[in-house]
Parts: sequence; C-alpha cells; structure tokens
Amino acid sequence: MIEFRSDQNIKVDAERISSLVKAIRQDPMGGWFDLPENYNRAEFENIKKAAAKINSDSEYLVCIGIGGSYLGHKAVIEALAPVSPTKVLYAGNSLSSRELRRLLVELGDADFSINVISKSGTTTEPAVAFRILKQKLTEKYGDAAHERIYATTDIKKGALHDEAVAEDYTRFVVPDNVGGRYSVLTAVGLLPLAVAGVNIDALLTGAADECREFLSAGDLGSTAAANYATTRAKLAKHHDVEVLASFEPCLHDFEEWWKQLFGESEGKKHQGIFPASVVYTTDLHSLGQYLQEGRRDIFETMLKFSHDNSSEILVPTEPEDLDGLGYLEGRPLTYLNATAEEATIAAHRSGGIPVLEIIAPELSARSVGALIFFFELSCALSAKLLKVNPFDQPGVEAYKNNMFHLLGKPGF
Amino acid sequence: MIEFRSDQNIKVDAERISSLVKAIRQDPMGGWFDLPENYNRAEFENIKKAAAKINSDSEYLVCIGIGGSYLGHKAVIEALAPVSPTKVLYAGNSLSSRELRRLLVELGDADFSINVISKSGTTTEPAVAFRILKQKLTEKYGDAAHERIYATTDIKKGALHDEAVAEDYTRFVVPDNVGGRYSVLTAVGLLPLAVAGVNIDALLTGAADECREFLSAGDLGSTAAANYATTRAKLAKHHDVEVLASFEPCLHDFEEWWKQLFGESEGKKHQGIFPASVVYTTDLHSLGQYLQEGRRDIFETMLKFSHDNSSEILVPTEPEDLDGLGYLEGRPLTYLNATAEEATIAAHRSGGIPVLEIIAPELSARSVGALIFFFELSCALSAKLLKVNPFDQPGVEAYKNNMFHLLGKPGF
Repeated sequence: MIEFRSDQNIKVDAERISSLVKAIRQDPMGGWFDLPENYNRAEFENIKKAAAKINSDSEYLVCIGIGGSYLGHKAVIEALAPVSPTKVLYAGNSLSSRELRRLLVELGDADFSINVISKSGTTTEPAVAFRILKQKLTEKYGDAAHERIYATTDIKKGALHDEAVAEDYTRFVVPDNVGGRYSVLTAVGLLPLAVAGVNIDALLTGAADECREFLSAGDLGSTAAANYATTRAKLAKHHDVEVLASFEPCLHDFEEWWKQLFGESEGKKHQGIFPASVVYTTDLHSLGQYLQEGRRDIFETMLKFSHDNSSEILVPTEPEDLDGLGYLEGRPLTYLNATAEEATIAAHRSGGIPVLEIIAPELSARSVGALIFFFELSCALSAKLLKVNPFDQPGVEAYKNNMFHLLGKPGF
Repeated sequence: MIEFRSDQNIKVDAERISSLVKAIRQDPMGGWFDLPENYNRAEFENIKKAAAKINSDSEYLVCIGIGGSYLGHKAVIEALAPVSPTKVLYAGNSLSSRELRRLLVELGDADFSINVISKSGTTTEPAVAFRILKQKLTEKYGDAAHERIYATTDIKKGALHDEAVAEDYTRFVVPDNVGGRYSVLTAVGLLPLAVAGVNIDALLTGAADECREFLSAGDLGSTAAANYATTRAKLAKHHDVEVLASFEPCLHDFEEWWKQLFGESEGKKHQGIFPASVVYTTDLHSLGQYLQEGRRDIFETMLKFSHDNSSEILVPTEPEDLDGLGYLEGRPLTYLNATAEEATIAAHRSGGIPVLEIIAPELSARSVGALIFFFELSCALSAKLLKVNPFDQPGVEAYKNNMFHLLGKPGF
C-alpha cells in the first residue's frame, strides 16, 4: 500500500534484507512485526468495551505515560481528528509543575477517567502524575474511583501490575516482546484511540495489509521498506540530518512519533541520522531557507498522500483582484497544496538536497495503520543496516542514574 | 537579565562585536534593535484599545499570517497561557484544506474577528485564507464585517494596505526596517498578544531592559549575547546541529520561533547550524537516546529559568510504597524538574555533547521579552560571524517561483 520513490540510485540487496527480516521476527523484541495479524482478539473486544464505558461516563480520559507510551496514539488522534464524546488529555510525560497545573485547570470538575500506561509502574514521570491524578479521582469519586482507572502494563509482574490487581483496576497488556516505541498497535495505543473515536479495526487492517504485502513480494528488494532503509543507509555516509516533511499540519505529532522511532532506534554507538521534522507550507517560511541554501548535509523525506480526501474548499471569487489571487479563483485548496508540494520537491532537489518520497493512498485510519507498520519495519531494517540494535535504548539510563543520585533514591 | 554559561573555552573579540553591533543598528533591516525603546507610543495605545474591543465582542480572534507573521505571538501565548475572554486561532500558515476545515468547525457560529498580518497582502497562504474567512465574516455580519477586520501591514503601500484603506479596516503597521522573523515586538505580535491577555507593557520592558543592559556593558565581550554568538561560531566548525532544549513543555512554540529565527537567518551560502528542538523530560525518552549516544556532531543549548515561578504541586503520600516513589513524598515537582535538568546536562556532557546554558530569571512576560531581544541580537551577531546576511531569505523564493509557474500565475 505504501510506495517509495527517490532521486537516488541504489541497489537493494534482497538476500540481506530477507535475512534481516528473519532476524527481526526472531528477535525477543520483534513481536510488533506479526502483531497486526496475531493480536489478542479477546483483549481487542475488551478494549472496545472499556472505550464504550469511558465514552459513556467521562468527558476526559487522561493518558498517563511517557515516550512510546503516548507518542503513537497522540499522533494518530491528531492526524485523524475523529469525533468522540471524550477528549483525550496527556500527563506524566514531563516533570513540569506548570504543565500539570494547566491540565488540572482544564479538567476542572468534569467527569474523567485515567489510563495509566507503564510497563513497570516505576518510571518517575508517569508514577508521579499517577499519584496526583489518582488523588484527584479519589476526592471526586471516593470508593468508586478504581472503576475509572485503566492500567496498561505488564501481564504478570511489576509495581503497576500489582497495584492494579490489588485495587481492581481494569487491566490491559504491554506485551513482553514489543518495545515502547513499537507499541502503538497494542493496548498501549488502542485503548486511547478507541476512546477518541478512531476506527481501530481499520487501523489494524491497514497494518496487516502492509505486512502481508511486504511478505508476499516475490522480490523483497522491490519493497518500499527495503528501498527506504537501504537509501537511508547509503545517504547516512555523507548526510547528518533527515528531515521528515509533510504538507498536512495535522501530522505534526506523527512526525514526533517518527523522530522517537528512528532517533531512539538508531542513535547509538555514535551512529544514526539526526531525525528532524517540518510541516509545510508554514516551515517553507522558516526552516525552508535552510533546506534550500544551508549546509548540504541534509536529506528530506516527504510524506505524501496520492489522494487528498479532505473536504473541498474553493478559493472565493472577489469583485476586484486586489490581492492578485484572481488566477486561482474557483480552484480547490487541495490542488494548491498538491502543487506547492510538487514545487517544493523540485526546488529542494535543484538546491542539492536528496528528496525521498513516501506515499500513502490517503489520510485515513487504514493508511495510517499501514504507515505505522511501514515505518516500524523500515526503522528496524535501517538500524540493522547501520549495525545497531533497533530495540534497545541504553543511553536513556544516563540522565536517570544522575537524577536518582541527585534525588537521593535508595541504591543510587 | 539573560545569562549565558557553557563548557567551552572561547575568547570573545569585543572590538569585533562592537563593530558588528554598529553595523546591525545601521542596517536598513536592523530596526528591531532599538524598537523596545523607540516604539510608537500612539500605536501602542491603539493596539490596547483594539484588543479591548475584540475582547468585548469576539470569542475568537483568527490571526492570518505565515512564518514571522505568527510564530512569535503564538509562542508567547503558549509560554505564558494568559487568561482572556478571546481565544486566538491561527490560519493562513498552510494550504491544507483539512486544517482550514478544522478551524471553521472550531469557529462554528461563535462571534469572531480577524487580524490579517501581511506586509504585502499577496503572499499566497494568508491571502487565500483571508478571502475565505472574510467571506464567512461577511455572511455573519453583513456590512458591519469590516469593523471586525484588523490589518497589520505596510504603512503606505501594497495590496492589503490598499484594501484596508478602501474597506475601512483598522490598520496597524509592519515597519519597513523590521523583517518578519524579528517582528514579534511590533504590532505583528503585540495586537494578538494583547487580545490573548499578555502584559505587553512587561514584555516590552523586558526587551528594553535587556537591550539597555547589553549596551551599557563596559566590555561587550562579557555580554551573554556576544558569548552565545561566539560560542556558536566556534562550534559551527565541527558541529552540524544545535538542539534547543527546555524542561517546560509550554516552550514548544518558542523553540519553533527560535528555529525560524536562526534557520532562516543563517541557512544560506551553504552555511549555518541546523536548528532542532526538544522538550524534556519527554524527549529524554525519545531523541534523548540520540543525544546521549548518537553521532557526536551535535551541541545542545539549554533554555533555563533560575526561579520556577509555577504554582507548587507536591508528590502525594501513599500508605504503601508500591511505585517506589516513597523517597520523593512531599517534594515539590519544581524540585524534581530542576534536578532532572541538572542530571541531563551532566549526562549529555559526559556523553561528549557540548552544552550551552541560557538562563532567564523566570517564566514571565518580562523575562520572555528579554529572551526575545537576547535571541534576536545573538542571531544577528552569529550570522554576521558566519559571514551571512542575517536579514534576507533568498531561498524562500525557490518554491514560490516553481509553484507560481505550476499554478499558471501571470508572469511566471
């Protein structure tokens, strides 16, 4: 479903890709690969039931989680802007007092539920936010508070698991074989997405279709994921920064998800390509200058849609052509935006920037599901080609160890 | 007011800085330097009057503008989250039909006004949005629509100026000697900021104080701006990316403003440092891995506050210490966040990343005003040290020319 094009001449080593795919699927953290086909159907139905209950009794769902525990679902909600009686809010992804206060002000006295998402339950940011929001929930609902807490956590151990069992929270599972940044299609993402009104069946179907299409390709060297990964590996030799670009502002958070996926998967052993993002046309009046004429150590990956399925808006006609837009009167904005995209790709290429194109059919739940699988697979392949482990994040411990020491945590 | 610290040994050439400052102030586009002292007091009062009117008759103010015409005020509003009866929305910064539709849905049938911000009035994105929103305004208010349109534009010429005169819109001025990305402290930013409830007197006072403090330094080589600019110029030799980092999520848009300021000012003649941004602690669970262990061609600039003036929230006490947070009970979040900041700086330095620190007194209108002036001055100095013009953006024309050609604009 997802297509890849570029201005680079590369040769994909199909045999190598094939052996890397095998290694990824056998990796203890490679569970995300077969997930779109082999997800837990019973839990999936329970997610839908929980979402229906939350929609019936909560104006807000506060999702407490950091990194991979929230970036994916936040991205999909922003991209699709579904309609729902419940608004999803986010907490526990920083230690800012100011940020938490703003959330508490927005919550006010409205009915709300909590989805706390943490494999262990001991990560500082979400654990602190959970204590504070649990207190607010208990003040409001007393003994019934526990009925409004949904814990997405380890299946059988850990602080949050144990508390959830003891306090009788509704539980969902963070699988052992799926890391945080690859977890959006597990309960981590699916519960908030269902609450927000996203069609999670279509999302999973899109991912499963993309997976099946990849595996059934006669020549893996012809697949979009293999080509994107191989092109990145080639460009990595002389380029330091990859800029993911889109002409849809509602993909801002999707680009944030992509940055975490690639940055955390590849940025180790002094390797990796620095992942940055822009949203056009606004950033053509910002970082666009740099892309056009700054240092030539950047390449750009344009995330495109072959069909713009947004509702049509036409450029209105005016009696006098004061603003010089007369030549555009009656034209749809979708045409203007697509033309700006084409113009930008040509401009950046002529400025000496390699431009890769990733093309999804349209901006829908099914396409977004396909894009998620496509990027996860491309990222894992790309990291393997750079000879780093796509599934660990040893560097994240450094600030934590320093912080625990400074805070006086026992044992540090 | 703004302080600078770093782990780099540099020597500032005070005489060179002094001559660059002179050149900047004499530049036809250097008007922003003396603006905080020499702004137009009569217009300033008219801005306040217009803001009071908009607050009294509008649930929304739609700001139509792209690049420097909106990034600055959007950033300040997000940073300070002031209270106001009028919510400021943004349009005309993309050509996305989807984005504009979402805005029209949010507006619904509420009372609103428009602030169209464009030096010329012919930039495609804002001009298209203005036609569409003007149509909606006219449908709602008929002949009185023009009383709800505020045009911030050239003082005496251009399409928007001419239309504003003909249609009797309230007018404010984009000065000739201030470019878009340096314009937040002109009417471009001040009207939306006043509408949003920002104390614009305090904002300008902060900027003026910072300017005065800089000019009155006995040795310009000792100033924060000169040190930041010189350190950047030194690091630019072996580093490709500067990451601006903050531990306050509400500075996300301020970082976007900073990226435009530096990226568009420096990214030319194949020069410049690629400007990127992160918000911590969330991005410590994302790009943090890359910063800790990825390629060593990055440096980090931490935007700090010496005093956290947010309202206090304490870690609640729980009867059992299931989550292992017992050692933090009763501690304020401000303390945790400050400790995380200290821990991160130490971790990144030990990972081989140069860390620069920019320190403002607190997150207030006055401090933000000082930061705006500080960054504008640092940026102009830094670009001059890299031997590029801080005030032009020749590369932005490339996509426009391609687009006009493809769209069939007369003359292209």
